[in-house]
Amino acid sequence: MNTRPYIDKHKQRFIDELIELLKIPSISADPKFKKEVLMTAGAVKINLEAAGCDKVEICETTGFPIVYAEKIIDESLPTVLVYGHYDVQPPDPMDLWNSPPFEPVIQNTDIHPEGAIFARGACDDKGQMYIHVKAMEVMIQNDQLPCNIKFMIEGEEEVGSVSLESFLELNREKLSNDVILISDTGMISKDVPSITTGLRGLSYVEVEVESPNRDLHSGLYGGAVANPINILAKMIASLHDENKHITIPGFYDKVEELSSAEREKMAEAPFYLENYKKHIGINDVHGEKGFTTNERNSIRPTLDVNGIWGGYMGEGAKTVIPSKAYAKISMRLVPNQDWREITELFKTHFESIAPDSVKVKVKPHHGGQGYVTPIDGIEYQAADLAFQDAFGKPAVPQRSGGSIPIVSMFEKYLGSKTVLMGFGLNSDAIHSPNEHFGIWNYLKGIETIPYFYKHFTELYLKEKK
Amino acid sequence: MNTRPYIDKHKQRFIDELIELLKIPSISADPKFKKEVLMTAGAVKINLEAAGCDKVEICETTGFPIVYAEKIIDESLPTVLVYGHYDVQPPDPMDLWNSPPFEPVIQNTDIHPEGAIFARGACDDKGQMYIHVKAMEVMIQNDQLPCNIKFMIEGEEEVGSVSLESFLELNREKLSNDVILISDTGMISKDVPSITTGLRGLSYVEVEVESPNRDLHSGLYGGAVANPINILAKMIASLHDENKHITIPGFYDKVEELSSAEREKMAEAPFYLENYKKHIGINDVHGEKGFTTNERNSIRPTLDVNGIWGGYMGEGAKTVIPSKAYAKISMRLVPNQDWREITELFKTHFESIAPDSVKVKVKPHHGGQGYVTPIDGIEYQAADLAFQDAFGKPAVPQRSGGSIPIVSMFEKYLGSKTVLMGFGLNSDAIHSPNEHFGIWNYLKGIETIPYFYKHFTELYLKEKK
Repeated sequence: MNTRPYIDKHKQRFIDELIELLKIPSISADPKFKKEVLMTAGAVKINLEAAGCDKVEICETTGFPIVYAEKIIDESLPTVLVYGHYDVQPPDPMDLWNSPPFEPVIQNTDIHPEGAIFARGACDDKGQMYIHVKAMEVMIQNDQLPCNIKFMIEGEEEVGSVSLESFLELNREKLSNDVILISDTGMISKDVPSITTGLRGLSYVEVEVESPNRDLHSGLYGGAVANPINILAKMIASLHDENKHITIPGFYDKVEELSSAEREKMAEAPFYLENYKKHIGINDVHGEKGFTTNERNSIRPTLDVNGIWGGYMGEGAKTVIPSKAYAKISMRLVPNQDWREITELFKTHFESIAPDSVKVKVKPHHGGQGYVTPIDGIEYQAADLAFQDAFGKPAVPQRSGGSIPIVSMFEKYLGSKTVLMGFGLNSDAIHSPNEHFGIWNYLKGIETIPYFYKHFTELYLKEKK
Repeated sequence: MNTRPYIDKHKQRFIDELIELLKIPSISADPKFKKEVLMTAGAVKINLEAAGCDKVEICETTGFPIVYAEKIIDESLPTVLVYGHYDVQPPDPMDLWNSPPFEPVIQNTDIHPEGAIFARGACDDKGQMYIHVKAMEVMIQNDQLPCNIKFMIEGEEEVGSVSLESFLELNREKLSNDVILISDTGMISKDVPSITTGLRGLSYVEVEVESPNRDLHSGLYGGAVANPINILAKMIASLHDENKHITIPGFYDKVEELSSAEREKMAEAPFYLENYKKHIGINDVHGEKGFTTNERNSIRPTLDVNGIWGGYMGEGAKTVIPSKAYAKISMRLVPNQDWREITELFKTHFESIAPDSVKVKVKPHHGGQGYVTPIDGIEYQAADLAFQDAFGKPAVPQRSGGSIPIVSMFEKYLGSKTVLMGFGLNSDAIHSPNEHFGIWNYLKGIETIPYFYKHFTELYLKEKK
């Protein structure tokens, strides 16, 4: 099996098609872009049909629709369900983009001398999702599709996959599969392929602190009335102790503690602290005492303020005590922590630490469970063999700090395992200004995925015997 | 001397003229309104000429111009210099205004059954400044101007009177006077006239905390990289201890400690804690241990965050660790604290508490000294007698938490005392949405001021003998 000639022959079209998809601002978090998100679902449908799916549907939900597609060649063969998402993160802060986020441009970088596509969603997840659409085209055009394929591409991943759970519950039959394949994670580097075996869960809340019922003159009232910003700052500060441990009672109760053997294995993954610091321009790393940087952002839970605002933010000076101050706070969770339970613990604790002089509201946004995939199953072996075929070396298993809430939902409703084959790099700046995706990574992904189908089908049939 | 008939005859015009002035958005803090601020200076000039000033000039400065006017009737008589400002605070948050801030409307309220003018600047300071313009018209039209009068109306009070110091230094001769009269403070209530004898100083700074050089994905980096919002919150929280004392080393060194006798005298001013809490909708007051509410917002220094922002503030959720977080912080100072020294202390301390993992910038905005006026001088006596004539009762001396940086500058450069006769109420919502000024207060002010000129001139001449 060699798919590279076909890929090389059609690579310009593969790039152009992705660029067209990236031009549509499918920002699921912002109601102003509802129309564009729906347009993107339509574009994905057309591309799945063009790739060779027999049946493609836009399935309505209470939120944004889910694009479902399938090609069933033989009921006795295994079925792979590909999951991805067509929605993207908001692009702001806009002023930090070197080119408009929805006008894709190709630029060379040190890491991507073959060029990278700069656009919101280039990597997360339009680019990685489209790898699978093109991989299917490659297999069909080369008569190399070894099994059945289903696609489920959603439009609410960046806002917590809110409609997905009920969709899974109502469509267990349609979505039945033998393995779920997702590319929405990263690889360690271009020459170190990796398979993500752990994901963090997420609890996302918004808090409001109200003191006076209107903005007050800070001279006439300053010192006598609780300032909601000062109070919010104090409350946020108290959520970590001096060792950067999170102080919410019960927060760590269910946290999975790794054995020193597991931690040693993790420590083998190549990591250069100086490059890490240099790349993001920090003088020093900062995190929970007793854990390495790689551990802090993968096997340990976190609490980060993602946004804060209140009072006067304009030019110059305004001497005011604002009525209200707000913050968006997210907690990354590790396996065994239940996001609903953590959200409740946060709410109870945050309300309990508010002084009598203020009113506090905690509004849960969304969340998802953490997850760990076993490395002894055939889905992991098939992925590992596919990387060996395409990269000439085995993959390194890695825990990711990110969250894909759906992975644990899949296991619950469809009873199937998920394998996470990522082709992005940490330096791709997903969720940041100037997000990009290397053309080399994009094409390498399209080359790698067909090997997964081949090996998975072989291992599946061998196991069946 | 009875000026009331003239005032009653012309009151509608007095109101209409003020309303015209309030329609111009003279927001000195916002560069977008430069033209409107300059237009306002022109409108003030025209009104001073119409009131009867002989010489009116718009004096250019490096910032917004100062309107100077005078009527010299006899060199041997005393000269009163009236100070006021024609610039206003920014109106935001706009959505909390019941009517547009620069489209004045008259509404009745419980406290103002005769109606109040709702507009930004209605009280602070266009309304109170215009009291003096109309008081002059009244005296001239009734042949009752007993002395010389000068006006100095500036356009940068809300941004720290930045150009004023050099203007005073260069115009000592032109501005020479025997007393400075200002209405930019409040009275205790409509039936309790008061004279402000103390003002707090101000130090206003803006801080920036930077961690990574770009926004990061909070899943991939969360827990391993300092989050500038969390750090800023911790730094702000550490600026007060559990007794709400400010923790900046040296901050209290020069704070004037009042004798228990002085504090008892202060405590005699009528104050109803329940009304205070009810009026601004708070469950409880909040401030420095060991001091009453009235002391906390008058004789004690404070530190308030006036604005904070960073990360994602839009709709929905964005899982990001922002590159930077910002805050605007102001400190109200009491007599003997030097604002430049305090600004330095803040800067040194704030930079010293920043962890190595972040970069911190402290940008001083502006400031001003605190001030205490003696109550045994003739200017205080004249003001007290004027209130007795107009209100039928003596004035209560009070310390105000607000700041008028110019008062201490006046003493330094012109060697003259200032008397603060305020006609606004705490409930007028200055610096807040729905700022307003009672028509009763406005007209009562116009009635009261001529009595001040009469008594001051008499006391001055008696003293001269």
